[in-house]
Amino acid sequence: MINEFYKKMLDGKSVIRTLSEKAVKRGQEIGYENVFDFSLGNPSVPVPQKFTDILGKLIANPDSMYIHGYSQSQGIPEVRAALAKQLNERFGMDYTAEHLFMTSGAAGAIAHALRAVTVKGDTVITFAPFFPEYHPYVDNAGRHLKVVPPDTERFQINTDEFEKALTEDVKAVLINSPNNPSGTVYSTETIKTLTDMMREAEKKYGHEIFLISDEPYREIIFEGTDSPYITKYYDNSLSCYSYSKSLSIPGERIGYIAVNPNCKDADILSVMCGQISRGLGHNCPAALFQRAVAEAGVLTSDLSVYETNMNLLYNELTALGFNIVKPGGTFYMFPQSPEPDAVEFCMKAFDRHDLVLVPADSFGCPGYFRIAYCVETEKVERSLDAFRKLMKG
Amino acid sequence: MINEFYKKMLDGKSVIRTLSEKAVKRGQEIGYENVFDFSLGNPSVPVPQKFTDILGKLIANPDSMYIHGYSQSQGIPEVRAALAKQLNERFGMDYTAEHLFMTSGAAGAIAHALRAVTVKGDTVITFAPFFPEYHPYVDNAGRHLKVVPPDTERFQINTDEFEKALTEDVKAVLINSPNNPSGTVYSTETIKTLTDMMREAEKKYGHEIFLISDEPYREIIFEGTDSPYITKYYDNSLSCYSYSKSLSIPGERIGYIAVNPNCKDADILSVMCGQISRGLGHNCPAALFQRAVAEAGVLTSDLSVYETNMNLLYNELTALGFNIVKPGGTFYMFPQSPEPDAVEFCMKAFDRHDLVLVPADSFGCPGYFRIAYCVETEKVERSLDAFRKLMKG
Repeated sequence: MINEFYKKMLDGKSVIRTLSEKAVKRGQEIGYENVFDFSLGNPSVPVPQKFTDILGKLIANPDSMYIHGYSQSQGIPEVRAALAKQLNERFGMDYTAEHLFMTSGAAGAIAHALRAVTVKGDTVITFAPFFPEYHPYVDNAGRHLKVVPPDTERFQINTDEFEKALTEDVKAVLINSPNNPSGTVYSTETIKTLTDMMREAEKKYGHEIFLISDEPYREIIFEGTDSPYITKYYDNSLSCYSYSKSLSIPGERIGYIAVNPNCKDADILSVMCGQISRGLGHNCPAALFQRAVAEAGVLTSDLSVYETNMNLLYNELTALGFNIVKPGGTFYMFPQSPEPDAVEFCMKAFDRHDLVLVPADSFGCPGYFRIAYCVETEKVERSLDAFRKLMKG
Repeated sequence: MINEFYKKMLDGKSVIRTLSEKAVKRGQEIGYENVFDFSLGNPSVPVPQKFTDILGKLIANPDSMYIHGYSQSQGIPEVRAALAKQLNERFGMDYTAEHLFMTSGAAGAIAHALRAVTVKGDTVITFAPFFPEYHPYVDNAGRHLKVVPPDTERFQINTDEFEKALTEDVKAVLINSPNNPSGTVYSTETIKTLTDMMREAEKKYGHEIFLISDEPYREIIFEGTDSPYITKYYDNSLSCYSYSKSLSIPGERIGYIAVNPNCKDADILSVMCGQISRGLGHNCPAALFQRAVAEAGVLTSDLSVYETNMNLLYNELTALGFNIVKPGGTFYMFPQSPEPDAVEFCMKAFDRHDLVLVPADSFGCPGYFRIAYCVETEKVERSLDAFRKLMKG
């Protein structure tokens, strides 16, 4: 029988997708350059030429089977060793190759991390606002996602609500900083409070509570922002990374899990993930991209455009009266809707001014909307007038 | 808590891996060129230069975000359309893009196909000898793998045993032809018999029984072998393909599912697979390789060396008295062990003559062993003497 569970998922089209499709359709009518499409978190700055050069060099290697041959399911050993070294130099960690597990982007990393440190029926906490894909990631693995209501003052963590949510059934906490959709970065103080509370709960309940830290926006940090290396503050932690945003290669699906060397069973979690892969059918990300990111090291695209866009929008929108927590990173901004119903507000913005904004109901934060400003700065500039008109009537 | 299920999987080291590790160790002692390592199914012929050229051209595209940007989870639409067209021209099918779903190799294809057309608790049939990874593929998806005993006469399908196995709980049949490990190719007659029996069972039980056809060796067919396009013979079928062997790129994890256009719910199975991906964390295979295989079309590595190797081994081994069904494709051969215990025989072959052969117990066929002759022909030639000595005692 066709699996009705997945068949039914087809009915639940996301608001983001609906809006994005409307935007494309409107683009066919008036030219896509005239649609201020802030709906998708798709990198807008080119892949660095150096990365392209690395790919070219790898492909030209006369030993084609070395380049394109099987990788271990944990990832290519030299690649894992290289990444461990890079992370140690940058963040003062003690990773070895055995703590690294190569994945198909952050989605693959979370899929494996979740299955490694929780079992079916366990509760996993996340904090609103949160990336809506956390629901299928957690639900389809047979775990239960518990969402802690937002701290709308600063979009850090609502500790009172976290305290209440941290019940005995919680076996993992999934966080995302720099955050999609709020654009805020959890401060050192936030991480210290969060991890102190988790350690206390571990003691109280007598079992581990793992911290799964989803960090695809780690490299997009704006001036003056405090951005701690999260897993440094908590032993039982797994850092999930993706190169999608830092190198503008989201289609290539390359990332990793870095298991904290002090984590419970740190020495076997990566090999365990290799076993998990056998059932999930990944095996490993593309070997070419494994080698390429290892060579790329700390190389990134020119990410400065995102900060330029952020400042343009933040200054204009706050001047217009929008209530916004200033983003510390990412390419997202998360204003409060001037009307209580953000869905209605976003529809109006689209219908009247060709502004494609995403209402945040599915991010666990009704009454807010997301602006994904990973678009050309020139378009951001032109959009400001549309925002002005929107606020004037 | 660390997931004990996956932790325990670590104890179950496969015989193939154990042998392969022994081979590498022995290689350090006497030089790897002197170890006749027939343990791994790793392509030994180079990637075709044309494919490397295609990769180079794609990478050089100035629109780097077009090349490396997000792909839909079903795969890039143009790529899926191109593959549908290629399959239609070659096999007289009526695929459209909507029937194609791009995957991380055949493993990814099977992971999605299984979840799309069965539910937890369902029984899935396969035929011995079979690829041992079918166990984690099926078991870890919460389905039950039922193995039909082998037809050791011809390594086609044991229809009497299949008849018995085809009970009401069976919802899918997973076949692999050209077959790993036997090297045989299911004939048109076999496929007709198999699919007739499945149709009858569908009628009898009043539910679909899907055929999942695992075809990574589709392009490695030897002279004179009858090799039908399997899904042509059965409507409720999904063809799972990988480019790992045909282009010698197993590390790049690229393949697809082609849903038979006459399959139940054919128009939605690919989008359903996109939903399945959200939980499994693949999303899609690397965009670069999607575009590259679409451009490559029917291009393959020079696969003729596998037939050369097969003939060398088959002629010598049958002359030495081995009982072997002549392979029709792949790069495997599956002789009967001259001693009842194939494990003991293979250990002796390794200890005395540096021959690395894999006993077939884990392939569901005790008393046989697998030779993976995807090695240099020169090494095959040198190995013949070792086989001679082995048989002389």
